[in-house]
Amino acid sequence: MADRTQMNSHQVEEGGAFALDFDKLEKVIDCGQALVPVAVQDADSKEVLVVAYVNRSALDYTLENEVATFWSTSRNELWIKGATSGDYLDLVEVRVNCEQNSLVYRVRPNAGGICHTKSEAGEPRDCYYRRLDFETGELKNLNP
Amino acid sequence: MADRTQMNSHQVEEGGAFALDFDKLEKVIDCGQALVPVAVQDADSKEVLVVAYVNRSALDYTLENEVATFWSTSRNELWIKGATSGDYLDLVEVRVNCEQNSLVYRVRPNAGGICHTKSEAGEPRDCYYRRLDFETGELKNLNP
Repeated sequence: MADRTQMNSHQVEEGGAFALDFDKLEKVIDCGQALVPVAVQDADSKEVLVVAYVNRSALDYTLENEVATFWSTSRNELWIKGATSGDYLDLVEVRVNCEQNSLVYRVRPNAGGICHTKSEAGEPRDCYYRRLDFETGELKNLNP
Repeated sequence: MADRTQMNSHQVEEGGAFALDFDKLEKVIDCGQALVPVAVQDADSKEVLVVAYVNRSALDYTLENEVATFWSTSRNELWIKGATSGDYLDLVEVRVNCEQNSLVYRVRPNAGGICHTKSEAGEPRDCYYRRLDFETGELKNLNP
């Protein structure tokens, strides 16, 4: 695995080097909120779009407004996906696991993919657009 | 939402009361490991099977053996899914998100569902077998 501390955000977000941030959950906790992870899945294609975090207020907002809403652990504020771009994720279904410590949101995106990165053609894509090549240990871009 | 502290594990895991464990991530961090969340998805049906956590050793084991392996944050040990039951999750694909702070494993289960709970007929099922009813706030069992 590559040394993430030697990479800039463009290299992390769009490059071919596999450099996981294993400190992520500690940063998530540092925001001081009580949170559960949520896997967000396209209700039609079943693609996983993002793994995010919700606290009680993000969940309440999601259910009241039927749009996928998270807690931004980096900005430490409510993150209503699409509030600035208009690309809301309409809520179709919420599922909970046996132990009730994680969620699945099934959503229908108003626009294309939900990632802030774009393909070379400028098209929106999903966050999981890179696959790990087991032989080389490098990331392959599935939507360049 | 129901008061989880008043419920036993059977009620949490198989009942109709929605009672999320918002303290989950704090417990995850308390195990002292550097972890990222992983959404595990059936490679064929695309159902989300579980959201779990991996540290470096769990990821290495997963890649070397091509079976989905996690870090058990409750037992604080490597959790080779299927090691006792034989119900391994064969690894098909690993994807990483833009920020490289979460994973998706696409897997092919050796047996049926992967949840430790069973349907009334004794059949295995997936962990997300309950859907939140937006009107009542109760959980509906989709695989009783």
